[in-house]
Amino acid sequence: MKAVRTAIELADGRELFYFDDEPGADRSGADTRDLPQTVGTSQIRWEPLYAEWAVIAGHRQGRTYKPPKHDCPLCPTRPGHASEIPAADYDVAVFENRFPSLSEDTRDNVPTVTDGDFVSRAGAGRCEVVCFTSDHNTSFGHLQPRRVRTVLDAWVDRTCALSAIPEAEYVYCFENRGEEIGVTLSHPHGQIYAYPFVPPRTATAVHIAEEFYAEHGESLQSRLLKQELSDGRRVVTETEHFVAHVPFAARWPYEVNIVPRRHVPDLPTLTEAELDDLAVIYLDVLGRFDRLFTTPAPYIAGWQQAPVRQGRDAWHMSASIFTTRRSNNKLKYLAGSESGAGVWINDIPPEAAAERLRSGRRAHDR
Amino acid sequence: MKAVRTAIELADGRELFYFDDEPGADRSGADTRDLPQTVGTSQIRWEPLYAEWAVIAGHRQGRTYKPPKHDCPLCPTRPGHASEIPAADYDVAVFENRFPSLSEDTRDNVPTVTDGDFVSRAGAGRCEVVCFTSDHNTSFGHLQPRRVRTVLDAWVDRTCALSAIPEAEYVYCFENRGEEIGVTLSHPHGQIYAYPFVPPRTATAVHIAEEFYAEHGESLQSRLLKQELSDGRRVVTETEHFVAHVPFAARWPYEVNIVPRRHVPDLPTLTEAELDDLAVIYLDVLGRFDRLFTTPAPYIAGWQQAPVRQGRDAWHMSASIFTTRRSNNKLKYLAGSESGAGVWINDIPPEAAAERLRSGRRAHDR
Repeated sequence: MKAVRTAIELADGRELFYFDDEPGADRSGADTRDLPQTVGTSQIRWEPLYAEWAVIAGHRQGRTYKPPKHDCPLCPTRPGHASEIPAADYDVAVFENRFPSLSEDTRDNVPTVTDGDFVSRAGAGRCEVVCFTSDHNTSFGHLQPRRVRTVLDAWVDRTCALSAIPEAEYVYCFENRGEEIGVTLSHPHGQIYAYPFVPPRTATAVHIAEEFYAEHGESLQSRLLKQELSDGRRVVTETEHFVAHVPFAARWPYEVNIVPRRHVPDLPTLTEAELDDLAVIYLDVLGRFDRLFTTPAPYIAGWQQAPVRQGRDAWHMSASIFTTRRSNNKLKYLAGSESGAGVWINDIPPEAAAERLRSGRRAHDR
Repeated sequence: MKAVRTAIELADGRELFYFDDEPGADRSGADTRDLPQTVGTSQIRWEPLYAEWAVIAGHRQGRTYKPPKHDCPLCPTRPGHASEIPAADYDVAVFENRFPSLSEDTRDNVPTVTDGDFVSRAGAGRCEVVCFTSDHNTSFGHLQPRRVRTVLDAWVDRTCALSAIPEAEYVYCFENRGEEIGVTLSHPHGQIYAYPFVPPRTATAVHIAEEFYAEHGESLQSRLLKQELSDGRRVVTETEHFVAHVPFAARWPYEVNIVPRRHVPDLPTLTEAELDDLAVIYLDVLGRFDRLFTTPAPYIAGWQQAPVRQGRDAWHMSASIFTTRRSNNKLKYLAGSESGAGVWINDIPPEAAAERLRSGRRAHDR
């Protein structure tokens, strides 16, 4: 059953959407805060040598940073604490980020400037926050499948809505989990970015996928999935509609792709049965990450969907979940080779990572 | 005056090179340790969808990790402590990494395997460690210009030597400084990697630089440098032969490129006068990073040299120095947007970063 969506407006005009597991919840609570309206000033700048955009978002330096638990802006509103969500409880809530890296109003506020080879444009797009649960102290991996399905419904809804923004070229749904990777709010939540360009590494992959699809009539991801299944050493778990496996050339210590068996470009293209199935395998994989070490692993989970306009026939969606932790007490840092040269060095062979994730055995502390 | 080079062999057969500021040092000390010979097992694996290699180096998990100061492997050897450097003192010492991500012996140990679209090859190349000083407690930014010149001579020598490795396609000299970016040995040191491929982001830039050079007869970097100088807002400091500036589309909170005014492909092509001048501006820039915050900023400094074989006429070298710190107590993390989508969000406008670096004023803590 699909989640029930209710739209409201926050005190400063930002949109908020409730996605409820069941119909009937009262969503009439108003945001009573006296919030100043923020004006987006971010811009994107073109780097001619590397052919890529960087987002310059100066106003974000003052954003909310590790507030104490009683001050959490993602918890429900209660007497004496008006949070971002004006309800005493909620299932899933999505709202526009108050400190967005990209926003639609920059379209009118930030001019395009061309000065020789230097080009800057408005950081037009949108950044949304997705609260997975009203419970401050849990994590995505501990949600019930029904709730995960509601989150998936929210991602589907928001992918469609954000794709309709005129400047949007790519919609990226993701979750950062864990202070070790820079999470500044511990309440279980993810984010959605609508970028006004296709991210550079994705653009390369889309180009390659399009060439492959034109030549072979199947997606490159389908072909690679068949090879992963026939090899088997990197497969972590399978369901009727999805396969979870460590990539052959994994860049991160523990990294899993969840790939639909059917060639579909994005989350909105999945059937009801596939979404129900995805909720199960996604939970399963997150649970395996939680059990890898003596404490839950920090991770980044993101959806590699097709761009809004390009390569949609060729692209075959997947989720990518990876941790930067390489043992109980050691993190993989992105230092000179990764951050400076763009070359990832991975200390955990993908087959060994898959074996550990498959067996549920803890990575021993070396 | 050029540094004096002396080559010796460590107990397990690895090469070590002393680079001395002045002639006359006794470099006859032998490595008396009983060191087992290590065998390189790393491989590179091709990711067909993203068209890039990842390095898989499983044997590195057991590498030396934050040893106590009295056990530092980069300090000089003293009675009761045989370090990697069998001398009571040294100026600059370069040796093969005992736990290399890439090594020449993999050529014979690690076969090329092709299985459908999955291709792996030997991680053939070389990883060297560069100790900048025998003083455990100082940092690069506090060296004397004469010593920096010796380090530059070492980088020149090693760039030439590593370029001669049959598999080497790119030589990358870099320094990671600071525990916050994952440095596991606090003794002032850098590294040199000889990769058996051109790093992917560099490969894109080389392609763009070649097209620009063919069309305009000047390097793209020369043209961008002229624009930076005529604009001036992002220039940090200048010398006779070099300009230090924040890039127009900077990805990191504080990021500086040091660019030679003359179009040269790499460090070995610099004249004696340019090398002397580079020592001065490089020290100046590192000092500015040290003074940005109340404690010295962690940084990554790397040399964007031309590849060994490709695009050497078009490429115009530079150094890139950047910190992941965005204020006294906050780091820039590479989370979902950067690590997942490959899109950098920078909270510090490049002009503001340049102004702070130029003035020497501390970034205020917000």
